[in-house]
Amino acid sequence: MSSQTQSRGKLVLVVGPSGAGKDTLMERALTDYACTQHVILTRRVITRPADAGGEDHQAMDESDFDDSLAAGEFLIHWDAHGLRYALRADIRNEIDQGRTVLANVSRKVIGAIVELGLPVAVIEVTASREVRARRLSMRGRETAGDILARLKTLDWQAPAGIAHYRIDNGADLTSGVERFLVTLASACGGDTPIRHLPIDTGPRLIGFLSLRHPLRDAIQALSAPRVEINILGRPLVLEVQWVDDDHWLPSDAIGLSRGTLARLGLIAGMPLQLQPAPPPAGSVALRRKLRGYSLNEEEFFRVVHDIADNRFDEASTGAFLASLANHLDDTEIIELTRARARIAQTLHWNRPMVVDKHSMGGLPGSRITLIVIPIVAAHGLTIPKASSRAITSPAGTADTMALFADVELGPDDVRRVVNGANGCIVWNGRLSHTPFDDMTNAIVRPLDLDSARMSVASILSKKLAAGVTHLVVDLPTGPQAKLQTLDKAEELKQLMESVGAALGMQVLARITDGTQPVGKGIGPNLEARDVLQVLDNAPDAPRDLRDKALDFAGALLDWAPDIAPGQGRARAEALLAGGHARAQFERIVDLQGRRQPPAAPGAFWADIEAQRSGRIRHVDIWRLNSIARLTGAPGDSLAGLDLAVRKGDDVRSGQPLYRLFTSTQHALERVVAFARAGNAFEIAEEP
Amino acid sequence: MSSQTQSRGKLVLVVGPSGAGKDTLMERALTDYACTQHVILTRRVITRPADAGGEDHQAMDESDFDDSLAAGEFLIHWDAHGLRYALRADIRNEIDQGRTVLANVSRKVIGAIVELGLPVAVIEVTASREVRARRLSMRGRETAGDILARLKTLDWQAPAGIAHYRIDNGADLTSGVERFLVTLASACGGDTPIRHLPIDTGPRLIGFLSLRHPLRDAIQALSAPRVEINILGRPLVLEVQWVDDDHWLPSDAIGLSRGTLARLGLIAGMPLQLQPAPPPAGSVALRRKLRGYSLNEEEFFRVVHDIADNRFDEASTGAFLASLANHLDDTEIIELTRARARIAQTLHWNRPMVVDKHSMGGLPGSRITLIVIPIVAAHGLTIPKASSRAITSPAGTADTMALFADVELGPDDVRRVVNGANGCIVWNGRLSHTPFDDMTNAIVRPLDLDSARMSVASILSKKLAAGVTHLVVDLPTGPQAKLQTLDKAEELKQLMESVGAALGMQVLARITDGTQPVGKGIGPNLEARDVLQVLDNAPDAPRDLRDKALDFAGALLDWAPDIAPGQGRARAEALLAGGHARAQFERIVDLQGRRQPPAAPGAFWADIEAQRSGRIRHVDIWRLNSIARLTGAPGDSLAGLDLAVRKGDDVRSGQPLYRLFTSTQHALERVVAFARAGNAFEIAEEP
Repeated sequence: MSSQTQSRGKLVLVVGPSGAGKDTLMERALTDYACTQHVILTRRVITRPADAGGEDHQAMDESDFDDSLAAGEFLIHWDAHGLRYALRADIRNEIDQGRTVLANVSRKVIGAIVELGLPVAVIEVTASREVRARRLSMRGRETAGDILARLKTLDWQAPAGIAHYRIDNGADLTSGVERFLVTLASACGGDTPIRHLPIDTGPRLIGFLSLRHPLRDAIQALSAPRVEINILGRPLVLEVQWVDDDHWLPSDAIGLSRGTLARLGLIAGMPLQLQPAPPPAGSVALRRKLRGYSLNEEEFFRVVHDIADNRFDEASTGAFLASLANHLDDTEIIELTRARARIAQTLHWNRPMVVDKHSMGGLPGSRITLIVIPIVAAHGLTIPKASSRAITSPAGTADTMALFADVELGPDDVRRVVNGANGCIVWNGRLSHTPFDDMTNAIVRPLDLDSARMSVASILSKKLAAGVTHLVVDLPTGPQAKLQTLDKAEELKQLMESVGAALGMQVLARITDGTQPVGKGIGPNLEARDVLQVLDNAPDAPRDLRDKALDFAGALLDWAPDIAPGQGRARAEALLAGGHARAQFERIVDLQGRRQPPAAPGAFWADIEAQRSGRIRHVDIWRLNSIARLTGAPGDSLAGLDLAVRKGDDVRSGQPLYRLFTSTQHALERVVAFARAGNAFEIAEEP
Repeated sequence: MSSQTQSRGKLVLVVGPSGAGKDTLMERALTDYACTQHVILTRRVITRPADAGGEDHQAMDESDFDDSLAAGEFLIHWDAHGLRYALRADIRNEIDQGRTVLANVSRKVIGAIVELGLPVAVIEVTASREVRARRLSMRGRETAGDILARLKTLDWQAPAGIAHYRIDNGADLTSGVERFLVTLASACGGDTPIRHLPIDTGPRLIGFLSLRHPLRDAIQALSAPRVEINILGRPLVLEVQWVDDDHWLPSDAIGLSRGTLARLGLIAGMPLQLQPAPPPAGSVALRRKLRGYSLNEEEFFRVVHDIADNRFDEASTGAFLASLANHLDDTEIIELTRARARIAQTLHWNRPMVVDKHSMGGLPGSRITLIVIPIVAAHGLTIPKASSRAITSPAGTADTMALFADVELGPDDVRRVVNGANGCIVWNGRLSHTPFDDMTNAIVRPLDLDSARMSVASILSKKLAAGVTHLVVDLPTGPQAKLQTLDKAEELKQLMESVGAALGMQVLARITDGTQPVGKGIGPNLEARDVLQVLDNAPDAPRDLRDKALDFAGALLDWAPDIAPGQGRARAEALLAGGHARAQFERIVDLQGRRQPPAAPGAFWADIEAQRSGRIRHVDIWRLNSIARLTGAPGDSLAGLDLAVRKGDDVRSGQPLYRLFTSTQHALERVVAFARAGNAFEIAEEP
């Protein structure tokens, strides 16, 4: 990926008899271990129907297969078990770009592939005949006769001069996958095995090397001694700490903490490629920015790319972020957005219009996303929505959706859900996170460096990379919201829309009321109840939540080619009232993976009453957030707070303002005491 | 020191029989181990002449002693061996400010001191009668009879309830000092012993703690998990890395790398006080600065103080430095200078006028300091000069002075030299360094954040803390100097002078020629030769070096109350020509500690010749620096480069431009090849 470490990738041919578990190993290795995030699993072209089960393949009938073959679209093709198989020719590009490409092929074509001149390694996966027989009969794809034919072992020898590895996959899946990863890393040139060291290095990425490591002098000669590792095609730089004790760390290994192993999705024993980290290519641009110059896309790209690869020390990154927060002109925002989009996870939809909604957040409740997406998807627009989990709030959209369905979906599953239901509501942690955020959040948040101008680049770059063409942005505005004044909100609205236009994206930013929660419930379970009431057109559904959701769905539908301008909201109302949104929601839930929703809120509850009569003049959102979090939300999804009144309501002394729900008596007592000391509602004295 | 960790200090009474080595232990502990930098060794008042040898004491005759006693200037007094002793009352202030104060007292007064209500601990230093007898006779201060009297052991018991430690100092000095430090740390409340861990953590200050350390939960609950240690009165914050292996690190210890031990001047076994590091008091001010506000002295003080104590992570420090480089208005420079002066090492001179000279540097050669100081000191002005060692240049003033005399003097020795010779030329590493620079140099230098405006605060704060009242600053200006244009130089001159005025310091900044070296030699030994030629009024002494030195000495002497304005330079010339400057230089060298100067430059040499005839139009200072460093200077003090020509000279093709000196044939070949590829002299073609 990095221009500094660009090296040709590798085509890793995974072979082995039917039932050895090749597909399962590869899928699990790619799904469960972050270290494989730059590894590509080639979908083979097979003359087998797409829905016939087994591996995810590209189905083709015989005649299309022949056409593609004639058009030179295949790298290689072969016949087996009465089917025709092929690898597409475009994997050559991926390999040239330094990617590791996994392909499940027949052993008999290895020789032919080697002759193509690609960098090839072979991993042979084996298992005993008994294990294979059991697996084949369990998957139930073949007849008993076919199984017998597939169980025949091939007398086979790898071509000379080709790196060839063999692993046994007869035991449990986890050890098979770990063995596969270790072998894959070796096949990709790794030669320095990872050793787990019992040191917790916190969020910092540190590699421990022996003072007797062969690269020591070369690394220490650098002005900033760091080591670059290559994780199956992803370069990453680690700070080095030196160990002077062979019992702690042998001289040929690299030591990583358990936290670093987990963060990078690596396992002990995997061999890595190491080299002294070259100076960051972006340092000239970074220093230019520090001296007050404006940067262009290419300069920003170099800096953010190097930050993502951990090539800069924290002080340099901190200085850069401070200078961004200090000055970022309108052109720079556009350039920075483009640069950031280039390192964000990219999704391709092959659809002319992909819509999305985004909120600047900060309001408790406000779960309109779970209503907007089904409405818009029910009309047929494509809306792949990735939402955050709560960081400092009582619930995030992903926390609430997680009550209904699995939200931790990878790109392939997201594509499957969207293909089936036009939309999805998933956690953004696996979908639209960027390595740049991973490296900078720990700096940006405590220093409060995330200026509104910077957030435009952050938000729009992710949308750009995710293939969004039309975006509605919610800008809640109020003294306790992220946008505190209408002037600031208006300025941000203009900026978002103009930057969007410069990037070829239609952006509509809407300034909304940010002075009180939207809906009644605060906390995952109570918010889910509100959402279902709206989707079910229940008479007591929170009106404000319904109205806001229809506004945003309507704005998105206004862009639909088959809806007349201004008619979007009416169409949204029809889809909601007719139950189409509700049905679409169920479709999305089924495709993401349905969960059994919890039945009722927390078993312990208490009401917090107004202490005087009068009109509610102000809701202290920060205080309300604190109270809601003290119930246990979002960690305890049954906990939360249910509002009985809204701003502007007239209340009598002793009338309940809201009800607190907790899962334990102790938590209830604590939060009640806290809420009674300050209930977040300001009531004007009666005249 | 820190307001956050302010705790009452400790009066540590060191007792023991004559010859046990108390004074030597205390002196060595304070001189050789940086961990004692905040420990004060009280000078006792003794009715013994100042020049009678032994410990550094304040001499007083009987009648003055009686007067001071009557005036309440003593904390405690006692008689011993026919002399009268006292501790001054002002040590109470030091203790109240959190300092550890060491005092050598008679055992018989301990009870009386305890009754004063001060926090007291007692360290008893012992040695066998034989060892003590040998030591007493070696120091030769007493008669044989006195020695016998002093050898009598006192039958003694520490008062009840007082922390009392005993150490044996009968073996070698180093183990005695280390035992003393460990005991002192215990006496000051240290309870967590330091364990050396075989991990090299680089420049970062890291403390390793066991995951089973009692403070673990309290530290991990912090938003930025760091631990504050107290090193004999100096608070300092360390990042924490956790160790999950009791064999590597017991749960009651703190692990430090060898580099951290060396940097903090600590030794394994010393117990430290630990507490979870509270959030930095300066973080509000730091974030204010990041958001573009101007800070006042108190805000700057909080931030720089916290940076000096390592309370901020590097990213925050980097962000702060970037925002300083980005914007620092004139008022802020004054406020920042005052704030930085408060954390710099302070010197008090009790003299109405203390002069100094400073150079922005960047020119090779240019060793005028070694001439200016003796001239000015010969006239009688006080000029305690602290200079830098080379960082990226072929020699610093301290490197050159180090050929003549010891330059690594602490504050007490500097005071002694200046008392004896009015001036000194010492390394600034131990005199005017600041913990702020220690923490930020590694960030400022690679990022090039040291703007001219920031350097005003940096320079003047150190001068202010060092008690300087009158300062001349050399601003070499030229395309390759730090100040590249006359406009920039003029701006900095005005700023320095006006900030100086606001601080009550007379500052005169002089813009000088920064387009070529001053003097002929580059490299410590050759520069020393130039200096001696000027001091000796040798006919072939470099004229430019002599002139520039006289200019600066004259400017300083113009401030002398007994010299008429404008007559300073004439007086400087008279002092130089009359040999007074030379004599003063020898006096300074003797007091600092004379060294045998090296006899001749490197044994290997070669001339670099002009490759065409013409007039020298330009000297490439950067290239010349690189060539000079490639000879081996300043590490090899005999290496360097001797200029034969100057800008404006007419040369013939083949005429030597300069001579290279090295200590090895290999180094010579390498530098000659490099110099021939580009000799740094631009010669205009003849018309």
